[in-house]
Amino acid sequence: MLHRDPDEIENQKAGGKGSVVLVSGGMDSAVTAAMAIRESPRVAFLHVRYGARAQDSEERAFRNIARHWGVDRVQVIDLAPLGALGGSALTDRSMEVPAANPDAPGIPSTYVPFRNAHFLAIATSWCEVLKFDRIWIGAVEEDSSGYPDCRRIFYDAFEVAIRLGTRPGTGIRIMTPVIHLNKGEIVSEGVRLGVPFEHTWSCYREGTRACGRCDSCALRLRGFSRAGIRDPLEYEISETP
Amino acid sequence: MLHRDPDEIENQKAGGKGSVVLVSGGMDSAVTAAMAIRESPRVAFLHVRYGARAQDSEERAFRNIARHWGVDRVQVIDLAPLGALGGSALTDRSMEVPAANPDAPGIPSTYVPFRNAHFLAIATSWCEVLKFDRIWIGAVEEDSSGYPDCRRIFYDAFEVAIRLGTRPGTGIRIMTPVIHLNKGEIVSEGVRLGVPFEHTWSCYREGTRACGRCDSCALRLRGFSRAGIRDPLEYEISETP
Repeated sequence: MLHRDPDEIENQKAGGKGSVVLVSGGMDSAVTAAMAIRESPRVAFLHVRYGARAQDSEERAFRNIARHWGVDRVQVIDLAPLGALGGSALTDRSMEVPAANPDAPGIPSTYVPFRNAHFLAIATSWCEVLKFDRIWIGAVEEDSSGYPDCRRIFYDAFEVAIRLGTRPGTGIRIMTPVIHLNKGEIVSEGVRLGVPFEHTWSCYREGTRACGRCDSCALRLRGFSRAGIRDPLEYEISETP
Repeated sequence: MLHRDPDEIENQKAGGKGSVVLVSGGMDSAVTAAMAIRESPRVAFLHVRYGARAQDSEERAFRNIARHWGVDRVQVIDLAPLGALGGSALTDRSMEVPAANPDAPGIPSTYVPFRNAHFLAIATSWCEVLKFDRIWIGAVEEDSSGYPDCRRIFYDAFEVAIRLGTRPGTGIRIMTPVIHLNKGEIVSEGVRLGVPFEHTWSCYREGTRACGRCDSCALRLRGFSRAGIRDPLEYEISETP
């Protein structure tokens, strides 16, 4: 009979000792959050404001998702300086949010330079303070706008940087459970897990209704269409895809 | 005769196309900044406030160093949420700054979890916006307090994460020119380069004079002593080492 260290067994689980979950308020992070809740013995929800146009809608979505699951260890971090550096149509009001073209090659103007590294850095610091060992992020690689910091190869590299830049033995891993799913699969998985899609917000623009015309709306609508599920959000333009 | 692409030649230089220099206001970053100015065709100085006890003294030092060199592309970033996460005697007023013991094994309570990753993330985003390709940071590995995020192995890993998490071809490298120097060598190099040490601030505590009793003061005083140079700062406790 093989005797195994209980700590080691615990550490094999996806949820580890505890998880910091990056929840933007969009559908990908909402599904990721539901997976983290299922896997992890303890969860803390982290939301970052960084001057994005839709940040108030995103924060509202975040708070409603946390309330839905009864998660009370939440943190909203203000990273306004990231947006103030400019260089992205998401944060720079002098640039236009481009019309949807999610399958175009190249990196769109909505890319916020190295944004997800900031999110991971905050999550790592909080993980280390809480003595947790998992970070969950709802990055999507294939069915996405082509941001470089949404690729698993980036998270693998960042995981090495975390191991070398934190106390020995923190054992922090980055979980990206939806990274290789398409948007249809993400919606189906979310429905299965009871994700409150009515509380999520994906649109790049601010407003009471989603615009239906940006990359993020287009990808979301495509996902619901593929999954054969009706999106509970209202759109300004409701093209039946 | 070998023909080389001028861009490639430019890229071989330590300074690359342009440099974002992390300047805390301490002696190590002041010497690093002087090196960057010598090597790089363009420099931008970046300072991060993160709720450290001495942050006002540090910012004053930063501004005086920038003024000394005539650098006008400067940015002060407020990262108060990092300090608010707690976990460090540098930012948590309920913890004591420990008495100097820089050669003790282990990681001291002044370690701010994963701090330098935040600095690098901001520097990377700014680099990408400015189309620069060098980040300079005054980390010191051997003659230090043993912070994990001050080791070259960490910067090597973070460089890979930058390459994978930014636009293709950004070519951003992390320069750590003082990482393998001891504090005496750093002081000597600074004197040679005309570093205005009278404007620098190293002490972990706030105050009009440096305390002379924390790790950072102890390491600094040891450096000046080894270099045979008088430290122009005033100390509350002036032990002749």
